[in-house]
Amino acid sequence: MINKPQKEKYISLAHGNGGRYMRELIERLFAHYLANPLLNTQNDSVLLTLDQREIAFTTDGFTVNPLEFPGGTIGSLAIHGTVNDLAVAGATPKYLSLNAFIEEGMSFEQLERIVKSMAEAASEAGVSIVTGDTKVVPRGEGAGVFFATSGIGILDKDHSLSMEKIKAGDQILVSGTLGDHGTAVMLAREQFGLKGDLKSDAASVFPLTQAILKIEGLRFMRDPTRGGLASVCHEISRATQKEVHLFQENIPIHEQVDSVCEILGYDPLYLACEGRVVAIVSAEQSEEVLKLWQSIASGANACIIGEIREGGIREAQANVVLETELGGERYLEELEDDPLPRIC
Amino acid sequence: MINKPQKEKYISLAHGNGGRYMRELIERLFAHYLANPLLNTQNDSVLLTLDQREIAFTTDGFTVNPLEFPGGTIGSLAIHGTVNDLAVAGATPKYLSLNAFIEEGMSFEQLERIVKSMAEAASEAGVSIVTGDTKVVPRGEGAGVFFATSGIGILDKDHSLSMEKIKAGDQILVSGTLGDHGTAVMLAREQFGLKGDLKSDAASVFPLTQAILKIEGLRFMRDPTRGGLASVCHEISRATQKEVHLFQENIPIHEQVDSVCEILGYDPLYLACEGRVVAIVSAEQSEEVLKLWQSIASGANACIIGEIREGGIREAQANVVLETELGGERYLEELEDDPLPRIC
Repeated sequence: MINKPQKEKYISLAHGNGGRYMRELIERLFAHYLANPLLNTQNDSVLLTLDQREIAFTTDGFTVNPLEFPGGTIGSLAIHGTVNDLAVAGATPKYLSLNAFIEEGMSFEQLERIVKSMAEAASEAGVSIVTGDTKVVPRGEGAGVFFATSGIGILDKDHSLSMEKIKAGDQILVSGTLGDHGTAVMLAREQFGLKGDLKSDAASVFPLTQAILKIEGLRFMRDPTRGGLASVCHEISRATQKEVHLFQENIPIHEQVDSVCEILGYDPLYLACEGRVVAIVSAEQSEEVLKLWQSIASGANACIIGEIREGGIREAQANVVLETELGGERYLEELEDDPLPRIC
Repeated sequence: MINKPQKEKYISLAHGNGGRYMRELIERLFAHYLANPLLNTQNDSVLLTLDQREIAFTTDGFTVNPLEFPGGTIGSLAIHGTVNDLAVAGATPKYLSLNAFIEEGMSFEQLERIVKSMAEAASEAGVSIVTGDTKVVPRGEGAGVFFATSGIGILDKDHSLSMEKIKAGDQILVSGTLGDHGTAVMLAREQFGLKGDLKSDAASVFPLTQAILKIEGLRFMRDPTRGGLASVCHEISRATQKEVHLFQENIPIHEQVDSVCEILGYDPLYLACEGRVVAIVSAEQSEEVLKLWQSIASGANACIIGEIREGGIREAQANVVLETELGGERYLEELEDDPLPRIC
């Protein structure tokens, strides 16, 4: 038996059983920090009247290790990740659901910091957590806390985006430096004996997507998370049956990300970002999108990094070509083994 | 390094990295079994046009151990749990999102059985899984698989339910026997050395809720999951500041549940159900609801088990009274310590 004082410091199985301890955990922590007019922890569901019937719906799971890292926590990440999936679909993120899988023995203090950072992220992104659920798993059957968030966003009816709209000649833009999140999390693990002051780029991309949504030549947006830019390019090439051609010298990469990747043998083009947008835009309007992004703080380092080209699919595979700084060309292969589990 | 043949038998970290293995896992397993016109695994979100703007939105996490038990799996449970939260809110369940947190080393074969049972449950309940996400966590940081599902349901505009509508004199009904799920899972664990042929009651309750939704005297519904009937009664008493009075002799409990609970020292009133509904109905219409339920297979054992009474709250606590078969009365206390982790 765990005695009372400990129960106030650490999560126990009783905090997940549907009884008094669970109620108190939810009231004191989740309901307290995430409070909003729609969140009623006495109900298992929430009744919503949406602004319209056209919505985007998405979900994401979060397992990042460590739970806290420079530039964010698993809590803020759980907000940004789902907000960003809605934003790149051309929607205005509105309502989120939250699941927490907490490991027995986790400290309240850390969980409180994480829920607090989650509340801040939600407030910044203009979204409300309106329904939730908490489970506690026995020690050794989890890892601190995992979150899952689902989100509902209101769609801009005048503008639909899809990979099907992509044409040869379209330009590829990225809103900022690549691989900051993956590298910052790696450094925070300390298992590599490296140090640095690099911060994760984790943030809402809604200001970036909102700024360019009215541009007619905007075809498609995606946030390069797991698998990084290279994986987004593979998806595009596979779906469009076209070549994705990247110019290495134009791709913005933080100096520190480059050095860490060189030391550890990673390629920053495969590392996760959590606050960047890749946009495919008509050649005519690509400069306009670039200027709009560069006028926003989070888009200051935006660049045009490549273009869509006609071109036979190589042996039924995706066709992603990197034109190197020295003028050579190499295929960027699809990611296979995972060098970095629990990065998001 | 894990070699190829093993990668086809067991989940590896590479199945969660955003690259080829993850794509193949999703295509071969999740997209294959859960296929529906709206599910497009190439998109991070789905665009929906709802039938109306009034919806119910809910979420639930699932960690049951063992992952497969008589009457269901963690997969079917993940569908029923969220479907049921929507159904008891008076909504028609429609769209679900799915998160999977898979532990490295889990066998494909078992995961396939689980996803298959999930697909069957979704089809039976008439819901579509329209968006999803998969994470793989290193061995020892999970337990096979955890799921989180969120759901959107279309609300019956003509009928709103809430605890605020509950009045003294209202009757308390339950749609079937209590504690079957909790007891079946307990027996499946084999840690107690007990055997039995009891099945979990896990199922969609939508047929039950739909059957009685038009009854004007219907005040409120809830599915008694974690914490069981006793915890639902506590919530009602706390919210209404009224006494919840239960008649022990009327409460339907499977003989085997009773015996197992007696041996192990559990109270079936605190054990989880996953396919039952507790309804609060005006005295005038309680018999009508009872008959409607009893005319449905899943409501065959429905009973009127108690009533709402005026009555001072005992020291600011919830007031749940059990009138025993011998005519005595005892308070049902709020659940404190957790005898049964990972029951749902």
